[in-house]
Amino acid sequence: MKEKKMIEELIKQNRSYRRFYQDHPIDLTTLKGLVNLGRLSASGANLQPLKYILSCDPQQNAKIFSCLTWAAYLKDWKGPEEGERPAAYIVVLGDTDISKDAGCDHGIACQSILLGAREKGLGGCMLGSINREALREQLNISKQYNILLVVAVGKPKEEVVIDKVGADGSIRYWRDEQDVHHVPKRELDDIIVAEYAS
Amino acid sequence: MKEKKMIEELIKQNRSYRRFYQDHPIDLTTLKGLVNLGRLSASGANLQPLKYILSCDPQQNAKIFSCLTWAAYLKDWKGPEEGERPAAYIVVLGDTDISKDAGCDHGIACQSILLGAREKGLGGCMLGSINREALREQLNISKQYNILLVVAVGKPKEEVVIDKVGADGSIRYWRDEQDVHHVPKRELDDIIVAEYAS
Repeated sequence: MKEKKMIEELIKQNRSYRRFYQDHPIDLTTLKGLVNLGRLSASGANLQPLKYILSCDPQQNAKIFSCLTWAAYLKDWKGPEEGERPAAYIVVLGDTDISKDAGCDHGIACQSILLGAREKGLGGCMLGSINREALREQLNISKQYNILLVVAVGKPKEEVVIDKVGADGSIRYWRDEQDVHHVPKRELDDIIVAEYAS
Repeated sequence: MKEKKMIEELIKQNRSYRRFYQDHPIDLTTLKGLVNLGRLSASGANLQPLKYILSCDPQQNAKIFSCLTWAAYLKDWKGPEEGERPAAYIVVLGDTDISKDAGCDHGIACQSILLGAREKGLGGCMLGSINREALREQLNISKQYNILLVVAVGKPKEEVVIDKVGADGSIRYWRDEQDVHHVPKRELDDIIVAEYAS
């Protein structure tokens, strides 16, 4: 394997994007290809409780959008304007007939999904702040399914950069005057609590 | 981007491995590089509650191994024999001083970590079946931290293949007479519950 840094580059490029070229079309084939990456990923006890709803339909997208809260730290921003909204969504469900608790399976699957999207020049964001009751009603989601995450997908229309966490210790992301989105990440030394080598 | 299928190939190759060339050395630099991939991945509300313990020390590895349950569906197999055990571990913790609940952050981070390992010709397994009380004592892990997952890392010494789920519907993995590990995965049509396109 020659490109040993490929995955690192892709992970670095795979930021959480919240503004998109809404007119950039994404079709069901693309969404299915992304879900397939989740399907092929690890699942606790191999139970595979995750199920998916796909949408690249403007009317359904509008319904989904109405149930989401975007970027809670940006108090003056209510989410992407019309024209900058996701062209598609993947709603990630936990099938309680299979398992009451999906563990962290949705995290594993959605990371695969978004890395796959990034490789295609797309991008997205995992959204957990969802009006679940409203979304269940809008999309007629059976009580059999827990609503775990909504993944927004589109062609990114914003720049997102990683910063070091500053002296104040805040991890709140923010936007500068050029509308660049800054995300403070803890440093490696601050997240390793012990290391053992012989 | 030319290699549009790269991530798909890597995800396919990234099986859960449980038998390794135990003597194949893995150093702290490698483990830190993998944790860095988790660090650069998404985190709910960007809180970044994940912390890590790294071990590539045989004595510490033995302590960690003693707290793990391997491949629960393989009733006749107690886990990898001496000589086929992981050369390293990454213990993933949730820092409750930052957040009481890590959400699915550990799934996101561990998928990045294992994809990075696979790219380097290594492999591993996320283990959730942990004697947490024993591990806390063995590694002196403060009550501040929840023990979320243990990631075993090594150079894989087994073949793992994906099968379709059979007529009986069982998702239990199994080993054939050649000791190949088979993992039944649900098909794409069985995990998509609705799709909307205009």
